[in-house]
Amino acid sequence: MIRQEDTICAPATGSGGAVSVIRMSGSRSLEILTRIFYPADRSVDLLNKAGYSLIYGDIKGGEDIIDDVLVSIFRAPRSYTGEDSVEISCHASPYIIKKILELLVINGASTAAAGEFTRRAFINGRMDLSQAEAVADIIASTSKASHRIAINQMRGGFSEEIRNLRAELLNFASLIELELDFGEEDVEFADRNNLKDIVIRIKLIADKLASSFIAGNAIKKGIPVAIAGKPNSGKSTLLNALLMEERAIVSDIPGTTRDSIEETVHHDGIEYRFIDTAGLRETTDFIENLGIQKTYEKIKQASIVLFIDDVMDGPEIINRRIDALKEFLNPDQKLIIVINKTDKVSPGEISGIHEKILAGNKDVVVFISAKNKTGLDELRKSLGDSAITEKLNSNEVIISNIRHYEALRNVSESLGRVLEGLENSIPEDIIAIDIRQAIHYLGEITGEITSDEILGNIFKNFCIGK
Amino acid sequence: MIRQEDTICAPATGSGGAVSVIRMSGSRSLEILTRIFYPADRSVDLLNKAGYSLIYGDIKGGEDIIDDVLVSIFRAPRSYTGEDSVEISCHASPYIIKKILELLVINGASTAAAGEFTRRAFINGRMDLSQAEAVADIIASTSKASHRIAINQMRGGFSEEIRNLRAELLNFASLIELELDFGEEDVEFADRNNLKDIVIRIKLIADKLASSFIAGNAIKKGIPVAIAGKPNSGKSTLLNALLMEERAIVSDIPGTTRDSIEETVHHDGIEYRFIDTAGLRETTDFIENLGIQKTYEKIKQASIVLFIDDVMDGPEIINRRIDALKEFLNPDQKLIIVINKTDKVSPGEISGIHEKILAGNKDVVVFISAKNKTGLDELRKSLGDSAITEKLNSNEVIISNIRHYEALRNVSESLGRVLEGLENSIPEDIIAIDIRQAIHYLGEITGEITSDEILGNIFKNFCIGK
Repeated sequence: MIRQEDTICAPATGSGGAVSVIRMSGSRSLEILTRIFYPADRSVDLLNKAGYSLIYGDIKGGEDIIDDVLVSIFRAPRSYTGEDSVEISCHASPYIIKKILELLVINGASTAAAGEFTRRAFINGRMDLSQAEAVADIIASTSKASHRIAINQMRGGFSEEIRNLRAELLNFASLIELELDFGEEDVEFADRNNLKDIVIRIKLIADKLASSFIAGNAIKKGIPVAIAGKPNSGKSTLLNALLMEERAIVSDIPGTTRDSIEETVHHDGIEYRFIDTAGLRETTDFIENLGIQKTYEKIKQASIVLFIDDVMDGPEIINRRIDALKEFLNPDQKLIIVINKTDKVSPGEISGIHEKILAGNKDVVVFISAKNKTGLDELRKSLGDSAITEKLNSNEVIISNIRHYEALRNVSESLGRVLEGLENSIPEDIIAIDIRQAIHYLGEITGEITSDEILGNIFKNFCIGK
Repeated sequence: MIRQEDTICAPATGSGGAVSVIRMSGSRSLEILTRIFYPADRSVDLLNKAGYSLIYGDIKGGEDIIDDVLVSIFRAPRSYTGEDSVEISCHASPYIIKKILELLVINGASTAAAGEFTRRAFINGRMDLSQAEAVADIIASTSKASHRIAINQMRGGFSEEIRNLRAELLNFASLIELELDFGEEDVEFADRNNLKDIVIRIKLIADKLASSFIAGNAIKKGIPVAIAGKPNSGKSTLLNALLMEERAIVSDIPGTTRDSIEETVHHDGIEYRFIDTAGLRETTDFIENLGIQKTYEKIKQASIVLFIDDVMDGPEIINRRIDALKEFLNPDQKLIIVINKTDKVSPGEISGIHEKILAGNKDVVVFISAKNKTGLDELRKSLGDSAITEKLNSNEVIISNIRHYEALRNVSESLGRVLEGLENSIPEDIIAIDIRQAIHYLGEITGEITSDEILGNIFKNFCIGK
């Protein structure tokens, strides 16, 4: 259980940098602050300071000056958590951060658990559960698309719709339960046709939202792309060419370098994450090795399969390889055929080969020279033409959270049973149970229905200090 | 040259975490802010907002909401840089940070060079040069001792003394130069005995400060400790035992984990940095291999040499090894003799061996069992008994900056020549030159005398955003 009476503290910023921020929240925040913080202006009355105040002064441990800091004060309920809160902006020294946290703990604060600030914001009604979850997604967002999904969710657009659907269902559930109370009198408060219409509509919405999850999840985590091809077809050269351009762009703005450089490529606000195709690289005979479990698994994970081949092998062999590969693809996977080493043939030859490959395939075909870095723009563009980007650009609500996806699937199943029940004249009490279930699952998304276990699972994946 | 008219921006916090802070400083800060920041309270007049205001609202790029943020506003001269400044506290998403910086740059800010905020603080008279340098030391400080030296320096205690000495010398220089103006009239405005006293006093202070540099530098960087000993004497086991305890302590407070785990041990607020003694570990015959250049170099770098040996080898062999090692040590290096594997002998035997080793050595001898983790506290304590910790605890001013050290050495040399000149009745104009030189070097420390080159060298080692 959350100890609401506790005042918690944690570092809110990452390691390194020039400045660090330490957060404290809870009813004793200001009292604890007075014990270690000495405003430069001695007339300042910390305990009675209004919210949204910014104060300069020293943090002291006994007689030792630990640092000169800026303190931001927030008063309940106008704070992130809804409680009295304090943010201490200090020099980003490991010693200073450790010392200030120590002093806060010595004076009565506890160290915060992961996500505890946001959990309190939820419990104190500052945001619903799907908004709280979006906070973690916002922090993790690295592309325009993943950021857009997260910020829409944090702003509550999606919650609003869920809450409205739930309210409609609740209304009907009450009417049906009222009928049950009247028992054998056989009255009908809830219009059956009306109920059916509403259930169909809500089920459609739930299904549509649920079906956006594959795209949403891919956008959130980066769209997985596998590069497949025989050895020496130029897989590594291509990847390096794409990545080198990418890194030059990323390193343009100081301080934004990523901790671990993943093999990702951005195009038009979307992140494409290249699956480690080591398994594919090892194979000596491309067609034969496609059957190997490891290689197959790699390809199966991808939304986009980028098949690269050597123009010098000629259209017949290339087409045969493409056919072999296609047997392993499912209909949702997009295939991009990349013909490499165009530097070795004439434009006329390319055109002839292009025709012969297109004859056997309706997939995208791109001609490149990874060595000379030609055709890369077209390749990037072809990544972006996928169904996922269409979905993104349609401006529909996209869900990216597996918990929401599962809840929506459960909503849809329950409502499916309601519809079946209505058609087969199943007794009201059974139908009422299924409606209640759908209401329950809708409530789980926004947190109107919740349990400590669900909350624990959600917030354990947050970072400390949020 | 610094472009004072420019408004600069940079991320101020490290990567990761829940919150990031982006800083902007310069005359256009507020104007640029108005183009991308929309306060939740629409009545807020950003351009005329007072310093030390804290405002909640949205950052927008066109119609797109990038993030909801907290903005702190500071007005010249009451800011870190002395200029109008803004701090934007946003969610710590790589995409959001990049996007906000992009928006600031699009609207007229430039990205800040390393240390440019502090450089401006110096140029605008918010701190002197030695205080500015202390800011970088504060951020890098990882131990109580290194933090204390840096914060004393940042608070200007040391600058004050330097400025006073310089003022005294300046006064005398003026008087002597006045004598020169009177040429052949042979008047003496500057009392020679008085001058001599002052020069001796200042030279003593400069020498004392300079001599604190070795300790200061060791404290700042961690006191270098080399572990020497024959293979299987237990070097790795000892180091691991010390480090394991250390890591348990460090990881006690979340969020303060260091980026790269160095082999460091803390005792009594001081950091001891274990030199990679791979060279020592490789040797098969300890005595023979001491002469190997690589091994010798490793030992030479250390302030403390921790010689570890196997109690089972007996006092005669151990003493012979100690004698061999001592030939390579200089008088400033402290030797700690660690006799390991006490678990293999009885207390009586230990006592006998102890006597025989002490007979040949006045160094510290510690008996441990690295395996059973006994004696480690005593070992830690013996690290702390060195001359460096004595210096630290004496509460004297300690300098830790090599630039200050070199300046103080130059001050001392110049004043040495002044004294020589006074004793040998060297002409006033020559003496005046040496006094002027001493004044120049004192001024270099606090930045009263400076050049773009010196400033460039100092600030290039700062992090971005400070």
